[in-house]
Amino acid sequence: MSGSANRVRVERIAVRDDGVHRASEADLVAVEEPVEIRVLVPAESGYVSALTMRTPGHDIDLALGWLVGEGVLSSIDDVVGVEQRSRGDGLDRSASVHVRLEPGVAPPIGRGFAISSACGVCGADSIAVVHQRARWHIATDRSSVTATVLTRLPDALRDQQATFRRTGGLHAAGLFTTDGSPIVVREDVGRHNAVDKVVGFALREGLLPLRGHVLQVSGRSSMELVYKAILAGVPILSAVSAPSSMAVDLARAEGLTLAGFARGENFTLYSRADRVR
Amino acid sequence: MSGSANRVRVERIAVRDDGVHRASEADLVAVEEPVEIRVLVPAESGYVSALTMRTPGHDIDLALGWLVGEGVLSSIDDVVGVEQRSRGDGLDRSASVHVRLEPGVAPPIGRGFAISSACGVCGADSIAVVHQRARWHIATDRSSVTATVLTRLPDALRDQQATFRRTGGLHAAGLFTTDGSPIVVREDVGRHNAVDKVVGFALREGLLPLRGHVLQVSGRSSMELVYKAILAGVPILSAVSAPSSMAVDLARAEGLTLAGFARGENFTLYSRADRVR
Repeated sequence: MSGSANRVRVERIAVRDDGVHRASEADLVAVEEPVEIRVLVPAESGYVSALTMRTPGHDIDLALGWLVGEGVLSSIDDVVGVEQRSRGDGLDRSASVHVRLEPGVAPPIGRGFAISSACGVCGADSIAVVHQRARWHIATDRSSVTATVLTRLPDALRDQQATFRRTGGLHAAGLFTTDGSPIVVREDVGRHNAVDKVVGFALREGLLPLRGHVLQVSGRSSMELVYKAILAGVPILSAVSAPSSMAVDLARAEGLTLAGFARGENFTLYSRADRVR
Repeated sequence: MSGSANRVRVERIAVRDDGVHRASEADLVAVEEPVEIRVLVPAESGYVSALTMRTPGHDIDLALGWLVGEGVLSSIDDVVGVEQRSRGDGLDRSASVHVRLEPGVAPPIGRGFAISSACGVCGADSIAVVHQRARWHIATDRSSVTATVLTRLPDALRDQQATFRRTGGLHAAGLFTTDGSPIVVREDVGRHNAVDKVVGFALREGLLPLRGHVLQVSGRSSMELVYKAILAGVPILSAVSAPSSMAVDLARAEGLTLAGFARGENFTLYSRADRVR
């Protein structure tokens, strides 16, 4: 199991009666890296089609938000039209969202971000692809948030997780202003889908880039969630649980504030701690 | 948010000093269904290449196990050779696994299982695809397990999660015999990867189909985990948390025993309760 955990420098935050406590410490985060699997096959042709298992609801936002994360959309003006199709019931229900792009808007290259290049498929390359796709410069975003607000967001998120309370089976993502006011909360079986739904909502509302906002997620933070935050222009990402190594690496490379283990009165910052007052 | 939760009939199990208690109850599970997103693009050609973010280690098993789940491999004899490649360090590390198939073994059609057909992209179609791919008939598997053994597996799994204890950031999957003896435990940032690594190990060891075994996973059970279990021929899948609706639907369609909320002395069965003594 060597190489599956990396030591990183973190800052611990604790809000207590006597004020906000911070401490810089060494911590371990799980390593996350790409792997490529190749099998020889005949040529394929077609339009770009991505399939995801998701919880029904807000499907148009899911599609739009996914395309923001792929670097295809940065404004609703990039879209000619979006059409949601559904027929049948229960297990026979068929659902699709058709997104027509404006001429000149490049379609997604394929699922995900990693493209085989100089290094093959590696973390640095994935970071470079995200950097190339990013429309907005997160690093120079001067937003800040108080530690007190950050400690309240997990509860604020959970308060709005109607389906989670009933099933115990949904992840959530919530968009908040830096003063802690909720903008939108979405739930889904997939954390990445919940984030896509939030970002798609923000695109339709003309909120991109999401300067002055915090994205709070219910579970762990992976590289995928960090790049979706960066492509949406949100400067602060907070997760209830642990980040992966690539989440930390990418957040640091792009200047995103990454918070983790947001529980009770405590959380941990993994990058750009200066944005937390 | 209507339609995001379904009511299903479940059986609650509680192991107490005075014996095993069972109760059939109505429960709610989160709905999970496929959605297709289409964007027009030019034709592509190449070999089949799948990219996944994973935790390094057991990469060959990850590749082999993924191909079992895609319905490509059912025996190590289907493989001419497997080669693992790695170069560079840290973020520049590039890793790949090249799998060469025997002539006559069909390559994967693409990522995932859902193929647009009569219904478009729907749950029933996904279940049909899994049924078509399955090499072994789970429904007739006569394995059984005691409730006492099932309640012990989450702790048995956690005891072997070395990296989780250090990082809080890894999922796990463990293969056990029906008397509770551990065969192999694997950890990964992705639950599906952890399962692939377990199944790849089993393929190499000549253990497929996994009759007389239980697969225990650390988190929730999605359709993806259920179909990986079915394609590996394992009759019993137990998860620490909630299943999705499609996980339940697919388990019922194929006759897999699905257990969830395995915590302390309690768990819930969602299908084929007859295998639990």
